[in-house]
Amino acid sequence: MALIVQKYGGTSVGTIDRIRKVAEKVIRTKRSGNKVVVVVSAMAGKTDELVQLAHQITPSPDPREMDVLLATGEQVSVSLLSIALKDKGVEARSYLGGQAGIVTDDTFGKARIRSIASGTIKKDLDEGKVVVVAGFQGVDEQNNITTLGRGGSDTTAVALAAALKSDYCEIYTDVKGVFTTDPNVYHKARKIKKISYDEMLEMSSMGAKVLQIRSVEFAKKYNVVLHVRSSFSDEPGTIVCQEDKEMENVLVSGVTYNKNEAKVTIKKLPDRPGIAAQIFSEISKANIVVDMIIQTPSAEGGHANLAFTVPTTDYKQTLKITQKLAEELGAGEVVGNKDISKVSIIGVGMRSHTDVASKMFVALANEGINIMMISTSEIKISCLIDAKYTELAVRALHDTFELDKPPNEESL
Amino acid sequence: MALIVQKYGGTSVGTIDRIRKVAEKVIRTKRSGNKVVVVVSAMAGKTDELVQLAHQITPSPDPREMDVLLATGEQVSVSLLSIALKDKGVEARSYLGGQAGIVTDDTFGKARIRSIASGTIKKDLDEGKVVVVAGFQGVDEQNNITTLGRGGSDTTAVALAAALKSDYCEIYTDVKGVFTTDPNVYHKARKIKKISYDEMLEMSSMGAKVLQIRSVEFAKKYNVVLHVRSSFSDEPGTIVCQEDKEMENVLVSGVTYNKNEAKVTIKKLPDRPGIAAQIFSEISKANIVVDMIIQTPSAEGGHANLAFTVPTTDYKQTLKITQKLAEELGAGEVVGNKDISKVSIIGVGMRSHTDVASKMFVALANEGINIMMISTSEIKISCLIDAKYTELAVRALHDTFELDKPPNEESL
Repeated sequence: MALIVQKYGGTSVGTIDRIRKVAEKVIRTKRSGNKVVVVVSAMAGKTDELVQLAHQITPSPDPREMDVLLATGEQVSVSLLSIALKDKGVEARSYLGGQAGIVTDDTFGKARIRSIASGTIKKDLDEGKVVVVAGFQGVDEQNNITTLGRGGSDTTAVALAAALKSDYCEIYTDVKGVFTTDPNVYHKARKIKKISYDEMLEMSSMGAKVLQIRSVEFAKKYNVVLHVRSSFSDEPGTIVCQEDKEMENVLVSGVTYNKNEAKVTIKKLPDRPGIAAQIFSEISKANIVVDMIIQTPSAEGGHANLAFTVPTTDYKQTLKITQKLAEELGAGEVVGNKDISKVSIIGVGMRSHTDVASKMFVALANEGINIMMISTSEIKISCLIDAKYTELAVRALHDTFELDKPPNEESL
Repeated sequence: MALIVQKYGGTSVGTIDRIRKVAEKVIRTKRSGNKVVVVVSAMAGKTDELVQLAHQITPSPDPREMDVLLATGEQVSVSLLSIALKDKGVEARSYLGGQAGIVTDDTFGKARIRSIASGTIKKDLDEGKVVVVAGFQGVDEQNNITTLGRGGSDTTAVALAAALKSDYCEIYTDVKGVFTTDPNVYHKARKIKKISYDEMLEMSSMGAKVLQIRSVEFAKKYNVVLHVRSSFSDEPGTIVCQEDKEMENVLVSGVTYNKNEAKVTIKKLPDRPGIAAQIFSEISKANIVVDMIIQTPSAEGGHANLAFTVPTTDYKQTLKITQKLAEELGAGEVVGNKDISKVSIIGVGMRSHTDVASKMFVALANEGINIMMISTSEIKISCLIDAKYTELAVRALHDTFELDKPPNEESL
């Protein structure tokens, strides 16, 4: 008898009819002889609706109260799914985050799970009940309701799988799995059968919205195998698991893009030690995360140009901070650019192959695309380009690394 | 510095704009130097909407899960009101039933409050915070969410007032107070300035929907003065408090009616000891509450006719049970009647005046209204009549006892 954690996203429980279908899926899994824990998100559109209600009062609602509000979305889902399960004669029991023993820190709106006291759930499972847990939420140590941020239900599911020592977590969503690139951008995008945690992490952080990053980190840490799949078909999706030999044979697994960054350049910055540190510590104080950084000597000498990227949501504030600093430091003008895009290739195979980067640069050059910045990790190369070339770049890279061909055929 | 508990009903928080208005009222009370606890209901229509969602799945949803679902209504209200208060610069903090320490029994859907651990709330109040509590809900001893039944927010408010040793609880609602009778039935209905707990209890149980009965019982037990008033004006409403001399001078305080009962008659019941007990114990086993009962010897002798009333919601089931019993006991036919109405007059003055009942019977006779059954308590007389005469009877009784005249003028 296996213990399976299933997570159903907002679209999967978006209507009463879909909730009924989820109930049927859960019952099939249960009747195949498994213990089942189901984690559900709020019904599609519900969270936005609640946010909108609060924004009718004020543009910046209190974070603690916001979490109290948002947590109702998942509460509605767990009760409705449990009602549907019980109506079909299956013993089920709903749990809110707090009731499921999920304790987080007190960062309202993006809390992190600290511990899960899963005793009650285990007891219910042993008694043959289906356990239905509200995703996305927990309580802090003072019993205040907290939420885990957008996509947090994924993390709830994986954390529960880890706590219950289940080694298998199914993430049901409205897409068929993880693709080599965004199918809306390139029709040749192919569903990936198996991908490593590290690649998935890079993909998530690069803008692929299939899984919350934190959930992949959890899965990697506790070695929980994830199966990302569609709730509207029985077709297998994408397995996210530990790296294996097979994966290393693949040079590049996917191409991603991210249009949500903006570039800021400080010109003619006096070239003395500690000055970059001063700038980035001011920006970090404002809770803004800087991504790519490049410093080049200016033509005149004795000065440098410093360019970096930040999320577009923090762009305005970054400009303000930077302009003030530039004046204080006697630097030149500050130039901003929102029309940029970051295109990345990801693959564990890069570790053992040296020519991947040059292949990428050539592919972009062949299309006449200028690279403004480059950043690399062990398994990822990112290039900052003009936003208007995003789709062109994605398609060129997808073709160059032949991502439309399944890796099995390649290795034959 | 006084401690005031304010309760706002569903209509009072029915829109974002009204929530803002409630916030202003709360702030005024706070700035007048009071400690304020606010209890809120779900936004008007919300609870029905949730019930309807569940009923799309099944006509008889699981009671435990139903409470999980319904509790979200008040959760949304407390968060939105707290957001509005904080936005206006007032420190506020929302509490769900369980967070507020409200522990109930485990009768889902109509749980009764067992205890309130109000330590955290007291601390918040001492720190100058406005405390916003979700009405209508609590948790049982296993930390399952429970709800207190329709109108349960009144009970939450009064119970909190009692627990916090506040002697004053304002119930803000969409009517101006308690009236001598339903203003929709008789335009001469007058707002009552002051009424005793016992009269209010009789009025509530007789169909006046201003307050949940349980809340009045709590108020009486802990001597909490209630002020029932409109949230849309600053006009004083009705004070519900302990009986005083002034009240005793009033013969009748109000006229109520209840169309939600049905009458069942068992004909030719063998007239032997214990037979009525047998019938009513069967009915009570089905959790059906019998109201009025009358037994008359049948014309033939040796038999009796037994008639009684039950809530219309239990009518069908009662007929079924009764018909089965009648067969077993060798009784005659069972006759049901849903077209009946119970009209009552209520007043603590009745205790010291003997002619009230006869005045009532004469008033009804003068209108040609036949009385099918009569039941009395110390401060109430009820008559069962044909439903079509309800409004006529109410108006006749209101005139007979001159309820349109304020009692002060009467005693001058």
